[in-house]
Amino acid sequence: MTVTGHMLIGQTAVLGSHGAIHGLAAASGEVLQPAFGGAGAADLERACALAEAAFDPYRQAPLERRAAFLESIASQIFELGDELLERCQLETGLPRARLEGERGRTLAQLRLFASVVRDGGFLGARVDPAQPSRTPLPRVDLRLRQIGLGPVAVFGASNFPLAFSVAGGDTASALAAGCPVIVKAHSAHPGTSELVARAIARAARQQDMPEGVFSLLFDSGRSIGQGLVADTRIKAVGFTGSRSGGMALMQIAAARAEPIPVYAEMSSINPVLLLPHALEERAEPIASAFVASLTLGAGQFCTNPGLILGIDGPALQRFERAAAEALGHVAAQTMLTPGIQRSYGQGVAMLAAQAPVQTLGRGLAGQGHQAQGALFATSAEAFMQLPALREEVFGPASLIVRCPDFATLQQVLHRLEGQLTIALHLSEGDQPQARTLLPLLERKAGRVLVNGFGTGVEVAHAMVHGGPFPATSDSRGTSVGSLAIQRFLRPVCYQDLPQALLPAELREGNPLQVPQLIDGQFPE
Amino acid sequence: MTVTGHMLIGQTAVLGSHGAIHGLAAASGEVLQPAFGGAGAADLERACALAEAAFDPYRQAPLERRAAFLESIASQIFELGDELLERCQLETGLPRARLEGERGRTLAQLRLFASVVRDGGFLGARVDPAQPSRTPLPRVDLRLRQIGLGPVAVFGASNFPLAFSVAGGDTASALAAGCPVIVKAHSAHPGTSELVARAIARAARQQDMPEGVFSLLFDSGRSIGQGLVADTRIKAVGFTGSRSGGMALMQIAAARAEPIPVYAEMSSINPVLLLPHALEERAEPIASAFVASLTLGAGQFCTNPGLILGIDGPALQRFERAAAEALGHVAAQTMLTPGIQRSYGQGVAMLAAQAPVQTLGRGLAGQGHQAQGALFATSAEAFMQLPALREEVFGPASLIVRCPDFATLQQVLHRLEGQLTIALHLSEGDQPQARTLLPLLERKAGRVLVNGFGTGVEVAHAMVHGGPFPATSDSRGTSVGSLAIQRFLRPVCYQDLPQALLPAELREGNPLQVPQLIDGQFPE
Repeated sequence: MTVTGHMLIGQTAVLGSHGAIHGLAAASGEVLQPAFGGAGAADLERACALAEAAFDPYRQAPLERRAAFLESIASQIFELGDELLERCQLETGLPRARLEGERGRTLAQLRLFASVVRDGGFLGARVDPAQPSRTPLPRVDLRLRQIGLGPVAVFGASNFPLAFSVAGGDTASALAAGCPVIVKAHSAHPGTSELVARAIARAARQQDMPEGVFSLLFDSGRSIGQGLVADTRIKAVGFTGSRSGGMALMQIAAARAEPIPVYAEMSSINPVLLLPHALEERAEPIASAFVASLTLGAGQFCTNPGLILGIDGPALQRFERAAAEALGHVAAQTMLTPGIQRSYGQGVAMLAAQAPVQTLGRGLAGQGHQAQGALFATSAEAFMQLPALREEVFGPASLIVRCPDFATLQQVLHRLEGQLTIALHLSEGDQPQARTLLPLLERKAGRVLVNGFGTGVEVAHAMVHGGPFPATSDSRGTSVGSLAIQRFLRPVCYQDLPQALLPAELREGNPLQVPQLIDGQFPE
Repeated sequence: MTVTGHMLIGQTAVLGSHGAIHGLAAASGEVLQPAFGGAGAADLERACALAEAAFDPYRQAPLERRAAFLESIASQIFELGDELLERCQLETGLPRARLEGERGRTLAQLRLFASVVRDGGFLGARVDPAQPSRTPLPRVDLRLRQIGLGPVAVFGASNFPLAFSVAGGDTASALAAGCPVIVKAHSAHPGTSELVARAIARAARQQDMPEGVFSLLFDSGRSIGQGLVADTRIKAVGFTGSRSGGMALMQIAAARAEPIPVYAEMSSINPVLLLPHALEERAEPIASAFVASLTLGAGQFCTNPGLILGIDGPALQRFERAAAEALGHVAAQTMLTPGIQRSYGQGVAMLAAQAPVQTLGRGLAGQGHQAQGALFATSAEAFMQLPALREEVFGPASLIVRCPDFATLQQVLHRLEGQLTIALHLSEGDQPQARTLLPLLERKAGRVLVNGFGTGVEVAHAMVHGGPFPATSDSRGTSVGSLAIQRFLRPVCYQDLPQALLPAELREGNPLQVPQLIDGQFPE
């Protein structure tokens, strides 16, 4: 199999005729072949019509078939073998080992959602049986389940070309919820996108899924992506990317005749709080772990630690020295795209140019499209005065904010926007301070973590990869972990339906053995 | 106790000085005393500051105290006794028996949420214990719970002056979620609002709740309500009312620097489908039950059956005759406000004036601010051509759409916007048709019911009072029933927190005995 430049509209490979997208070799900037044809309005129309037509048969197929489809996608992606990894490495500049790990994560995610589908707990089944002899009025029979919202548009991330792209977390959770998916391919890895899309299409064929359950569109501009969000048949949007990109989609979705939910994961600087006892006891090891997290994957993670808060003094100075020293040994790494590298360079230059910002250290210089790590420090006062210092610089750059005291550190935290993660480094003696901070931290972030860093997002049931705006557009959801499925569901109540008309998961005797809340309780 | 015209800003009774609102006697239109002083910007600021200050202490208080507070509100409202019922009757024109029933529903709702809080299932607790020996990487300890979004603004409904107003479903579910509430009083029942607000304030004092847990504001125009939704400290909005009102709040919320969720329950015509066998067998009893539902409470229910769909023919004609005949005996009833009565009159006149619409029958004529029932019929063709026929006429008016065949009936359904309810009248022989329709019905409505009407919304665990736009602004929620609490929650993940820092509901050994999903399973 080779990359051909075709989209997939349902099961049909279509070479778009509206402009062309070229992959670029991340390391060299070289233009890769083939060209990928951009979709036009007719392609968009066809993908939406197919998705709409697929919705009812797909969501009504037995849960076991939906689960098998998710597992089959995982197998088909694995079957792509080296071709996928090589193409992805070329397009993204990410090391082979990282991509193998990411592929494993992608397959595990699909399989997790298969198990979620089989378990049936996501249906949120509730049964309040009729009480015909209740007085003064009998109670009707009420049964509730969650159903899919409808076809979902997914915009993948550049920084996770497998785990958060075509068959990534948004796609897996939407499919698990019973929603057909149309992916707008990220232009930073079009060949990877095509290969993965074909794996999904093969799985759909193999499992005899309705054709429109999945489509992939290329967009040579912005009109196809925007048109997708505006289309009446699309009922929800998953997006991972920039704040401006996410906000643009939110605005389109809110302006529709029928507004729809947008789950956009956008912007986070992931503050790290160094509490005094921990800093006193472990300044150097924390600094070394921090630099490892900061520079992992060229800092291209949503959960990258972009901000360090500590109380100014000798211990913080030790941390600063150790971190600058460690960073000085870190090799530059190729960034995902020339555009990301350009933005990173501008962000670092902007920080370095601020009068109250001190450059503490840099990583090793690189070449071509590589990013050189950067560590800065400033005062709490400057940080609170200059909004530019609070913006995300995507890449291996971080800013240490020296706070004169704990009260100021709290003030700085109060000023911050919503975050994906906030990390606390603490020792036993810091617990009273940590306890004081926690109510604020949980209001500011979707995940609060201790003695670690936000990078390395476990795919699990209790994970939250989300958070208050602008970390995400909707703090009620997570885009990683099994809870992500809930974003694409809505409740429906069935009143007094004859047993024969009820969905199987709500019938008397619970034939599917799904978790059912009966009169508000799970039966013992 | 007498009505004084004061707002409640936390525990302080404040006489607003920005314009005045007067209650009107619904039956006579007479202006009631006293005047209610409208809030100004300083009042709004104070209420928001108090709500923000109350959020952390309120949400962190033990669940048992939160539950006791909800129960105490119920007791305090009951203690208002006749004064509340009399004032409410005067302001709304609703009969005493209805108001006693609605008060019972209001208290039951508060007590239901107290039980939901005690149960702890709403916390959605999830625990994925650490796996220190997992390879290649150990797994961190992950724990998740749902916390309140923050202070909530509630805009009550005119048609449920108790159950969906100051201490109604939105307030009860937001308080249960741990969110302070600021209510913008509905100008149609200001005295009722003041009395209920004082009952809440007494309960808050009695249970030693933080002051800002509840405030009530009067608004002599629209700026206070709009300012409330725009205020940075408000994190969600509950609204029941008109489509234009809900849309205005959605736009304000979406335009904020930090957009917030709006749960607006707006507009629904609640289609009723009469399937052939049922119609053949029971045209007359269905017609009689339909007229009872249509005219209940002067038709002032969100779930009022405003649209009947059936296959044209002798059985439908029997239904029409029986319904027109039954309606002819129904006395006119006082509407909630002169404004609602005016709109109803305009809506009925608009329908009557359409060339393809036939007036089948009217209720008995009324006087003053009373509404006379109205029943119309039209063809499926006209219904699909004229958008005006698909709009909600709030009050006891309904439109029968005669479909030439089942396929046309399906087309009509396809054209409909989202609904709160869709009712199916069917007999055994109609089940195949019903089965064909169900996938569409569940996409169009939050509740699908058989052989009944949508009026009479049971407060239960499996109830959904919600639905696709424009029935509500957000189909993912319900405003009635215990699931309503989920609208005001967001998930937070705690990674590797020491036991002493974890919220009690997530600690090892589950000291609060709340339902916990452990590694994705409820323990046996």
